[in-house]
Amino acid sequence: MSYARPMLDTYPRALDVSADLLAGAIDAMTDCAQACIADTDADLGEPNVTEMVRCIRLCLDCADVCTATAGVTSRPAGYDANVTGPLLEACVAICKSCGDECERHARMHEHCRVCAEACRRCEQACRELLAETQ
Amino acid sequence: MSYARPMLDTYPRALDVSADLLAGAIDAMTDCAQACIADTDADLGEPNVTEMVRCIRLCLDCADVCTATAGVTSRPAGYDANVTGPLLEACVAICKSCGDECERHARMHEHCRVCAEACRRCEQACRELLAETQ
Amino acid sequence: MSYARPMLDTYPRALDVSADLLAGAIDAMTDCAQACIADTDADLGEPNVTEMVRCIRLCLDCADVCTATAGVTSRPAGYDANVTGPLLEACVAICKSCGDECERHARMHEHCRVCAEACRRCEQACRELLAETQ
Amino acid sequence: MSYARPMLDTYPRALDVSADLLAGAIDAMTDCAQACIADTDADLGEPNVTEMVRCIRLCLDCADVCTATAGVTSRPAGYDANVTGPLLEACVAICKSCGDECERHARMHEHCRVCAEACRRCEQACRELLAETQ
Repeated sequence: MSYARPMLDTYPRALDVSADLLAGAIDAMTDCAQACIADTDADLGEPNVTEMVRCIRLCLDCADVCTATAGVTSRPAGYDANVTGPLLEACVAICKSCGDECERHARMHEHCRVCAEACRRCEQACRELLAETQ
Repeated sequence: MSYARPMLDTYPRALDVSADLLAGAIDAMTDCAQACIADTDADLGEPNVTEMVRCIRLCLDCADVCTATAGVTSRPAGYDANVTGPLLEACVAICKSCGDECERHARMHEHCRVCAEACRRCEQACRELLAETQ
Repeated sequence: MSYARPMLDTYPRALDVSADLLAGAIDAMTDCAQACIADTDADLGEPNVTEMVRCIRLCLDCADVCTATAGVTSRPAGYDANVTGPLLEACVAICKSCGDECERHARMHEHCRVCAEACRRCEQACRELLAETQ
Repeated sequence: MSYARPMLDTYPRALDVSADLLAGAIDAMTDCAQACIADTDADLGEPNVTEMVRCIRLCLDCADVCTATAGVTSRPAGYDANVTGPLLEACVAICKSCGDECERHARMHEHCRVCAEACRRCEQACRELLAETQ
């Protein structure tokens, strides 16, 4: 079970953004990072690994950006739109690219279908958080 | 929602360990890492921050170790007991120390009670995974 | 010794950007991430920790963003301005804020003076990389 | 330039270990993590990517373990042999495996030769730090 929401509910000061929205985005980012890490390994185990190279590279970038964005947004006290804004934009962009590429392989590889879903959900959650915090 | 279990269910080869156990441990680690990151920020917002220094330090170590262990165990193909074994041991040790320290502050700070729970669950999940994979 | 430059010099395809500039930026990011992690711990050891809270928070964000940006730029093949652009912008912004805050404490705490230098160098390197890659 | 040594030289309390040894190990870990991240991307760009799968997987694990170990050892105040000991053991084990595998490809791929050197240096530095801190 995720502790993002209970941690926000017990946070020692008021939040600038709804706890529902923020906890949902943090969960979507950590879930997407894990899915991308796992999908990289699954892709590497496929017989057509040569065709999966672009998917692997996007998953690696996506995991890194989601992990950093989850870290920064999990520390709401120091919120700064000049940092969080472009970071969420980068997260939206890589989740979009990675989700598109995973979807291309979804029919052949079930794990790419699952990862595409994780990327779509994260892209959407980051867009919503970005809209509310700008 | 976590994708750890669906990613393992669609993994292109057989696993050496039960998917239930492995997915549970991966989730416990990513959840604990996020809780520790959030608890660090919450601790820094408390009036008695001076007394929270040890808690903050343990949370930072715990987040780093949980993140790395979640990464390595999310790539099951290259499983190597010489690496995963001590890594899980380090994860058990830091989750135990961090959980103990968070519990000391649980009555005063609700966020530390939540974080202690995340650490306890992760410690237990890592012990079980360690027992089955050695 | 850093391997960023030798890794780029042996990279199996042409780079879109000068190896000097890219290797310099990667080094500046990994060095800044480490300095910020170390400065967090040093700040926590100071008697006036209450006054160091903002510095600690900025260092934590700076370390996360620098680590992710170093990861993405260390994989030059999949370079995408839509991702790298905002990521570098976020890195410039947090290095600026973190460097400013560290500098405020530089006279009292030598470790903050060192960390401020790491942040300034990284901010500058990211600005130059951003200018050449947009 | 690395700030590991200047950060230790300005650390607000005495260290349990020589600053030379600790700073050298921290540098070796952050350098190895970066080399492994870059080598993953270089391997993915090789025509014989199918033969590089094991190398890529080891580099990914090595980067994660080195990053976590560098983080924990960069915060020397909370040093705990029960955590740092197994963490350094895991780091030695993955650097050994990753260095061996990179060396197998060193004649064909210059980037693997560079990465093998980074792994060897990190393995050695972690062994020395482990010996002095147990």
